[in-house]
Amino acid sequence: MIIVLKPEATPEIAQELLARIEEKGLKPLHMPGAERVVLGALGDERVLSELRLEGHPYVESVKPILAPYKLVSRELHPHDTVVRLGKVAVGGRGFTVVGGPCAVETEEQMRETAGAVKKAGGHALRAGAYKPRTSPYAFQGHGEEGLKILRRIGDETGLPVVTEVMESGDVDVICEHADALQIGARNMQNFALLKAVGRASKPVLLKRGIAAKLDELLLAAEYIMASGNEQVMLCERGIRTFETATRNTLDLNAIPWIKQRTHLPVLVDPSHGTGIRDLVVPMALAAAACGADGILVEVHRDPSAAWSDGAQSLYPQQFEQMMGQLKPIVAAVGRQLA
Amino acid sequence: MIIVLKPEATPEIAQELLARIEEKGLKPLHMPGAERVVLGALGDERVLSELRLEGHPYVESVKPILAPYKLVSRELHPHDTVVRLGKVAVGGRGFTVVGGPCAVETEEQMRETAGAVKKAGGHALRAGAYKPRTSPYAFQGHGEEGLKILRRIGDETGLPVVTEVMESGDVDVICEHADALQIGARNMQNFALLKAVGRASKPVLLKRGIAAKLDELLLAAEYIMASGNEQVMLCERGIRTFETATRNTLDLNAIPWIKQRTHLPVLVDPSHGTGIRDLVVPMALAAAACGADGILVEVHRDPSAAWSDGAQSLYPQQFEQMMGQLKPIVAAVGRQLA
Amino acid sequence: MIIVLKPEATPEIAQELLARIEEKGLKPLHMPGAERVVLGALGDERVLSELRLEGHPYVESVKPILAPYKLVSRELHPHDTVVRLGKVAVGGRGFTVVGGPCAVETEEQMRETAGAVKKAGGHALRAGAYKPRTSPYAFQGHGEEGLKILRRIGDETGLPVVTEVMESGDVDVICEHADALQIGARNMQNFALLKAVGRASKPVLLKRGIAAKLDELLLAAEYIMASGNEQVMLCERGIRTFETATRNTLDLNAIPWIKQRTHLPVLVDPSHGTGIRDLVVPMALAAAACGADGILVEVHRDPSAAWSDGAQSLYPQQFEQMMGQLKPIVAAVGRQLA
Amino acid sequence: MIIVLKPEATPEIAQELLARIEEKGLKPLHMPGAERVVLGALGDERVLSELRLEGHPYVESVKPILAPYKLVSRELHPHDTVVRLGKVAVGGRGFTVVGGPCAVETEEQMRETAGAVKKAGGHALRAGAYKPRTSPYAFQGHGEEGLKILRRIGDETGLPVVTEVMESGDVDVICEHADALQIGARNMQNFALLKAVGRASKPVLLKRGIAAKLDELLLAAEYIMASGNEQVMLCERGIRTFETATRNTLDLNAIPWIKQRTHLPVLVDPSHGTGIRDLVVPMALAAAACGADGILVEVHRDPSAAWSDGAQSLYPQQFEQMMGQLKPIVAAVGRQLA
Repeated sequence: MIIVLKPEATPEIAQELLARIEEKGLKPLHMPGAERVVLGALGDERVLSELRLEGHPYVESVKPILAPYKLVSRELHPHDTVVRLGKVAVGGRGFTVVGGPCAVETEEQMRETAGAVKKAGGHALRAGAYKPRTSPYAFQGHGEEGLKILRRIGDETGLPVVTEVMESGDVDVICEHADALQIGARNMQNFALLKAVGRASKPVLLKRGIAAKLDELLLAAEYIMASGNEQVMLCERGIRTFETATRNTLDLNAIPWIKQRTHLPVLVDPSHGTGIRDLVVPMALAAAACGADGILVEVHRDPSAAWSDGAQSLYPQQFEQMMGQLKPIVAAVGRQLA
Repeated sequence: MIIVLKPEATPEIAQELLARIEEKGLKPLHMPGAERVVLGALGDERVLSELRLEGHPYVESVKPILAPYKLVSRELHPHDTVVRLGKVAVGGRGFTVVGGPCAVETEEQMRETAGAVKKAGGHALRAGAYKPRTSPYAFQGHGEEGLKILRRIGDETGLPVVTEVMESGDVDVICEHADALQIGARNMQNFALLKAVGRASKPVLLKRGIAAKLDELLLAAEYIMASGNEQVMLCERGIRTFETATRNTLDLNAIPWIKQRTHLPVLVDPSHGTGIRDLVVPMALAAAACGADGILVEVHRDPSAAWSDGAQSLYPQQFEQMMGQLKPIVAAVGRQLA
Repeated sequence: MIIVLKPEATPEIAQELLARIEEKGLKPLHMPGAERVVLGALGDERVLSELRLEGHPYVESVKPILAPYKLVSRELHPHDTVVRLGKVAVGGRGFTVVGGPCAVETEEQMRETAGAVKKAGGHALRAGAYKPRTSPYAFQGHGEEGLKILRRIGDETGLPVVTEVMESGDVDVICEHADALQIGARNMQNFALLKAVGRASKPVLLKRGIAAKLDELLLAAEYIMASGNEQVMLCERGIRTFETATRNTLDLNAIPWIKQRTHLPVLVDPSHGTGIRDLVVPMALAAAACGADGILVEVHRDPSAAWSDGAQSLYPQQFEQMMGQLKPIVAAVGRQLA
Repeated sequence: MIIVLKPEATPEIAQELLARIEEKGLKPLHMPGAERVVLGALGDERVLSELRLEGHPYVESVKPILAPYKLVSRELHPHDTVVRLGKVAVGGRGFTVVGGPCAVETEEQMRETAGAVKKAGGHALRAGAYKPRTSPYAFQGHGEEGLKILRRIGDETGLPVVTEVMESGDVDVICEHADALQIGARNMQNFALLKAVGRASKPVLLKRGIAAKLDELLLAAEYIMASGNEQVMLCERGIRTFETATRNTLDLNAIPWIKQRTHLPVLVDPSHGTGIRDLVVPMALAAAACGADGILVEVHRDPSAAWSDGAQSLYPQQFEQMMGQLKPIVAAVGRQLA
């Protein structure tokens, strides 16, 4: 529920109303604007209807938030959120390119790959230390050892690092080493994990599940925000359809749809989205053209030797060419590569 | 099967080999190049293996066509095909914009809408006279009357016209009035119709079925080419997935995938692909960015009064803005709006 | 629109009302019952609302048909329709088993296979003379020659025969030789063909498209009925989903859903529905358990030598065992194998 | 890898080989049979190939396990596993019916509903104390309080209880109160949770994810077994497809497919599989007919007042009728309701 106060409402009145919202067991929100103070109340709809603030002398108007997601919605927060990924701003006018290998394999592999990302103009580094693998017999990641390598390489290159968290118990150690926590597609509705990263101090990159409807993605983001973390980036990474020519079906329609409904930045992962190296660059360009705030791209110093996802990883020179091709597209839609 | 002749092979030898291919019941192809003559033989694989041309003194090499589609494949025909849609060239360096309403409603509606398409710089006109409708009680189109209106408006504006054919029996009358025949998504595997348009004198715009794998789309095009019509344009228009936020899921991954495998031009229909007006322009830009040869966009002089597809039709001024936004994107990928 | 007349309404009054419906351009329906006469009016909703029959002195009540399909709906026709497939009744208390090979290959193959179907207690024979094939280079069926073989074998065994029609132009010749016309999945929304079989004198077996929603299947049946043919059988044959373990995903949920909404009989095709021989019998039993009116099963005298669909065709002895296993299941749901 | 020893191999030799497998970092398995001892070795394929046991004098044969899942596969374990759910045997000749409400709401609601399940002949009780909900503002379950109610009602009725676990940290408390742990569809690839329940002392009911391929379901079960828990039941509960007539598409094809490949019991949940009360019983019967080992059905003392899933919950009398209808179907496939 959005409560717009009259111009003459004093801070004390706002505080009194927030207290009233809170004692009903609802979540109070305070959004002071240039001209008016706006309050929010979130929670059970039946309780909301008992608040009866319409008649209050300092309340100008009360309106329901129609979307099932609230904190995530543009109804409550019309301006674009800019997420701070280390020193990089994600969202707003910039277009952010995050590159890196699927997994942290060795320190040398990370150093060479990160060097290529940096040299080509990439803004941040991605790599997994904890890997969700379909088979229990596949490489599961180096864990904390991998985190330390990632941190070291991030510091060397000056690139902020994003890495996946698979379990509530690992949130703290990952926050210690990384600049952002990634929730993978398989965990998009792991609600315990969403709540855990919602209490964390680092931004969260939330990937869409392979069978998640867009409303469900936004509600998953709502779990994180409702737990207190407002630094959330969404990521489209392909859905599962009948089509087997590509590993997944990258759903770019999601980008303008989501941007209309939420203030959160939205990235696109054309590597997982297609699963085919030759399609990564065209889809990266398409993502920029339809309004994405950035991309997440797999690149490896030697894709043919990658321990995982080699078939969808760019060669360093392809990554560099992509950066050049992105520039005019990004400019054409009124943005800039940082 | 592709048969490369030695440089010294005379035209007579080529003719003799073509005759040998034909008498086996196979389809012979003659592809003279600058340096060498290449022959093709299509048909049943068992018969192909009986040809035994490897040992022929004027044959340099024989190789199978690996793809299940042959005439459609780049293996047989590496250069891009340019299709002649009236005086407009589709494919090659240009980027073609086809606009128009879902259906021919009235002469006035067509005249105003076509005028807007022309004024904004659109290259061709689309509208249906025969409408495939899910319910037998919905408007089924004006039929031949609609074709005549379409032709008149096409002549007035100088825009070539594309319109849907739903039945073999209507191919002739549509060829008489239109510049290209559209096969709709529901008829992509109506093989009798594919063969019929394969014998027609006008180019064919073949739309992907809502549940068609990309291989199946190319094999449907193969039906048309195998029946003799080489002027085929493919069109991605959205597939049916679990996602209901959009009417269909426009699958742009298809564009670079298809362009690698076939020499035929590929258009994108973001109107049916998304079903939502606000998504049409972003997805049109994305289509241009990932390598499409053009787009097919629904526009109506007054979408709120459209008899069908109003919710996905652009207003004339949106169409005009889109043309402006397309220009730098098209240029960024090395093409041009005619 | 359903118009219930008062008990005192005479036949003349009914005729007068039907004429009034017809002159508005609507389709009139006359459904005399034991106690009351019920009339129907189908067509454009705006015209329906202009009829204004509510105030007529002999009209008891007027109610809209809520479903988008009308003739197909139980709202208009609450009792189960029984379709006459030659001398076999499909629908009602019986459970019908239609068996046969994918395609008519040779007279011997048909004779042996049909003999096995007959001997095991099968009720009807299926086989294709016109084959819809994804590739133009695959076997396309023997055409009229195949129809003649099919008719001969049907007559020899006393089994009625069902075969696919792919084109309006073939409806007559197929009606001449077969007892029912099958519309394949790819043609479920080939509206020209639906209208053509709607004018035919033989029953129609309408298969669900691989991406057809159930409402769309019922609307496709409505096309046939609205063209005059009331003898329609529906058939669930698997939909296309992300799952690749099976060729299609046989959607048995469709059976009770459809049976609630329509009076038409519904068959299940577990051969195409699964694409795997070992799954055919379990799914045939499941179809019987959840209320199907019969099954359509591929069987071949020698599946390993079948020209098409060998992997999903039963061996004759498996077909025979299936008939034995079906008996108690069919009895458990209050039906009987004829 | 499966290693069959010669008849003359002594227990000491088997131990020596198991030690050799273990010191390579592989998981050793000891499977003594009536005639021969069979050993297994699981883990990284490259390491497996270094074992070189083919030449060992007491080894009769060595063969790879072809399926990506090993412990789960019938290749390694041909006989059906029977899981002990309290005193109820799941798998084997019996057919198990688990009933209960979506969530533990109140003690009275649980007592009445469980009483109805017991009276009708149900074998076990299901209800959620921890509820995965799409929105953070929806009822999230009573947690440990709910577990205690569930345990109390289970003890009163003598029905073993199954309940969902959503987080590794809750495994212990749930094991204390419940007879089996359910992994919900959203967590099927929450690998941290799979490993956690793999170390638990209670059986696990693993539900298929809404977009999980069958191979992925079996690999998820492999995670649990590889962590040490051999008491795993699988559950088909509907997949997400384009069809919106039903909440999900219950994929019964999965049952015979899975039963061929694994020795684990497989249940079916027609409540979530269809989402529509009227379809639950027909699909329960179909599940029994195609070889499922049991069903999981939502029933509520008053579905219209249920806090969640009311539309798909049976009324107690429907549940009772279903038990009667199941009996002859279960008997027809050679099984029995306990």
